[in-house]
Amino acid sequence: MILDIIDKKRLGKELSYKELDYFFNGYLNGDICDYQMSAFLMAVCINGMTNEEVFALTKIFIDSGDCLEFSNIDGIKVDKHSTGGIGDKTTLVIAPIVASLGIPVIKMSGRGLGYTGGTIDKLESIKGYNVGLSEKEIVKQVKDIGIVITGQTHDLVPMDKVIYALRDVTSTVKSIPLVASSIMSKKIASGADKILIDIKVGNGALIDTKEKAKELSDLMIKIGKIYDKEVRCIISDMNTPLGYSVGNSLEVLEAIDVLKGEEKSNSFVDLCIDLASEMVSMGLNISKEEAKSKVINSINDGSAYNKFIELVEAQGGDIKSLKVSNRKYSIKANKNGTLKAINALEIGKLSLGLGAGKLNIKDKIDYTVGVKLNKLVGEEVKKGDVLATLYVNRTIPTINVDEIFTIK
Amino acid sequence: MILDIIDKKRLGKELSYKELDYFFNGYLNGDICDYQMSAFLMAVCINGMTNEEVFALTKIFIDSGDCLEFSNIDGIKVDKHSTGGIGDKTTLVIAPIVASLGIPVIKMSGRGLGYTGGTIDKLESIKGYNVGLSEKEIVKQVKDIGIVITGQTHDLVPMDKVIYALRDVTSTVKSIPLVASSIMSKKIASGADKILIDIKVGNGALIDTKEKAKELSDLMIKIGKIYDKEVRCIISDMNTPLGYSVGNSLEVLEAIDVLKGEEKSNSFVDLCIDLASEMVSMGLNISKEEAKSKVINSINDGSAYNKFIELVEAQGGDIKSLKVSNRKYSIKANKNGTLKAINALEIGKLSLGLGAGKLNIKDKIDYTVGVKLNKLVGEEVKKGDVLATLYVNRTIPTINVDEIFTIK
Repeated sequence: MILDIIDKKRLGKELSYKELDYFFNGYLNGDICDYQMSAFLMAVCINGMTNEEVFALTKIFIDSGDCLEFSNIDGIKVDKHSTGGIGDKTTLVIAPIVASLGIPVIKMSGRGLGYTGGTIDKLESIKGYNVGLSEKEIVKQVKDIGIVITGQTHDLVPMDKVIYALRDVTSTVKSIPLVASSIMSKKIASGADKILIDIKVGNGALIDTKEKAKELSDLMIKIGKIYDKEVRCIISDMNTPLGYSVGNSLEVLEAIDVLKGEEKSNSFVDLCIDLASEMVSMGLNISKEEAKSKVINSINDGSAYNKFIELVEAQGGDIKSLKVSNRKYSIKANKNGTLKAINALEIGKLSLGLGAGKLNIKDKIDYTVGVKLNKLVGEEVKKGDVLATLYVNRTIPTINVDEIFTIK
Repeated sequence: MILDIIDKKRLGKELSYKELDYFFNGYLNGDICDYQMSAFLMAVCINGMTNEEVFALTKIFIDSGDCLEFSNIDGIKVDKHSTGGIGDKTTLVIAPIVASLGIPVIKMSGRGLGYTGGTIDKLESIKGYNVGLSEKEIVKQVKDIGIVITGQTHDLVPMDKVIYALRDVTSTVKSIPLVASSIMSKKIASGADKILIDIKVGNGALIDTKEKAKELSDLMIKIGKIYDKEVRCIISDMNTPLGYSVGNSLEVLEAIDVLKGEEKSNSFVDLCIDLASEMVSMGLNISKEEAKSKVINSINDGSAYNKFIELVEAQGGDIKSLKVSNRKYSIKANKNGTLKAINALEIGKLSLGLGAGKLNIKDKIDYTVGVKLNKLVGEEVKKGDVLATLYVNRTIPTINVDEIFTIK
């Protein structure tokens, strides 16, 4: 039976709900081994899955754990998910904006994975910030101030945890059916009414072409329909890091600058406004245009920033504690020209190498280190200009400037 | 590095010798985990390998262990391999025929695997037969009587052992590149001068179409050329069991009947004569036609049978000890008609269920049980005719006659 199921997928045949249920729950129970699941996952990566199979898998994932229910909180709860990027601090910006406009925000975020940082790690660079709220505390805080950003509380989709860990070490991450069921099962189990997905495309991302992003988007919208949840997707570039900072404290500081309206227009600010407008449009059932003017107002009148401060204080954080390392190192341009590209993946690796993330499970994150870009793509640079400042606390890894920055 | 290699194969790209060497030896060393290797093997099953990759893999397999050398034995040593079938006792027939014609036969055989029995298990149904000869004993016996059939002596291709065990439990057995490198590495390491491969095609076999069998054949011939070894392949049917008996003692008794010339022409006898003629043609550098008349003579004049008896005695076996169970059970036809098909796979499962093979590693083989077919494909049968006799020692499993026998 186990081998028959793997065999069917090897041959690209469709599996029934019953077969998938047997196989995945068998894995969770320990009846099916890691090496059998990884062979199966590779067959899925290469041969794909039908929509029916993805729907079945999503249900199996959801049913593997608890589901949250926030119907006792007024308002349309809109959740947002990003497929992950380098320097992706959008949650820190858009959650306060959306909450400041009266839409309840319950955001359960994750930790860093691979080269990408996690919102929870970033928030922990604020001393005292509690990322471990209970369900009761979440409900109370949302009723009080309309916003929560915390770690995952319940045993939501335990199947996804074990499958994701296995995919991570077997090169079976990049599969549209597996990505879709993983994301959608978690979002549905988290109890949101509507879901916005930010699909990152590029060399620093799970998805490398716009075509695949569109396919993933269509599939997730279809899954949402089954659960009667509106899903919208935004496809955004991830060839270049998001904004000018990568690293925990540095990213929180950048988010604060955006919330204060101190950063006017760059691609990161634009993305934040776009995502926030989409969420507000969904949460208030208004046009995106109307939503956008509300979003811009909430930044300009200070309410977005105030909501962020309210959030940090409610969860016990001391915003004044934020600090970056005093030791700095400059990466300088080795020629004149236009900055054509900044390699997101290389910046992610560099930041990880400085200690901003974990290379091994036992590593401790250094919240004070990271990379701050002094020049963004499109700018003119002269030989000797500082392209980026590294905030460091340990030996600096060897840096090949040309691998990170393309100047022409 | 590990993930990059898996990823390349996921995307169907070609790997270098260096990459394959790193990956497979990393697995043997324990640096690469089962679940990583199984994901890789599945990617190979689906995306294939280039010829260059297969040549590299074969070399990596060979280099993982010892190589035997029999150049001090006169004559061309021809080895024969079958990709495995139900009731495949051809080695027991053709090795003595070939040896009786003056060609040295050093046959290292294996044990049963899955639903198929192994030559070594079959020989152990002869009391006293020693399947554990040392290299020294092998050389002495071949010089004395020109024939040896024993288990594998040295640590030949240890890589194949671990990879095969993993493939067996992850549905990654059916891959032409993996089958070719597995077979050829073992045959080359075994020190044969020329190699004959019997590729079985059908529902009871690794390979299910003639096209794939041809592809496998071409690939193995190419690998042989690299090592300057002539390789010939015969493609034979494995939809129907070979001959009329399946089970250890039963198969030895059938082999003896064929060696004695008591079974004239059936598909199994024809296959034995074909394979033996090919080996004699290779070993004596004569035409296959000429070889065939020598083969038939060696049966008719008793020299083939005498050689078998010489072999059994030389390895300490008592041919009179051969026995089958007294408890018999008849499977009868449930209608009149022509016997259109006998499902090899179902017969294999049935024989295994009776105890002729191991369901679990700790099981003991019962040499006296098995299935004897009373009717072969093409024969007319009447309702109530005995189709097969089961030799049993335990509770008989439920039998669905129509699943095994097609009467129309």
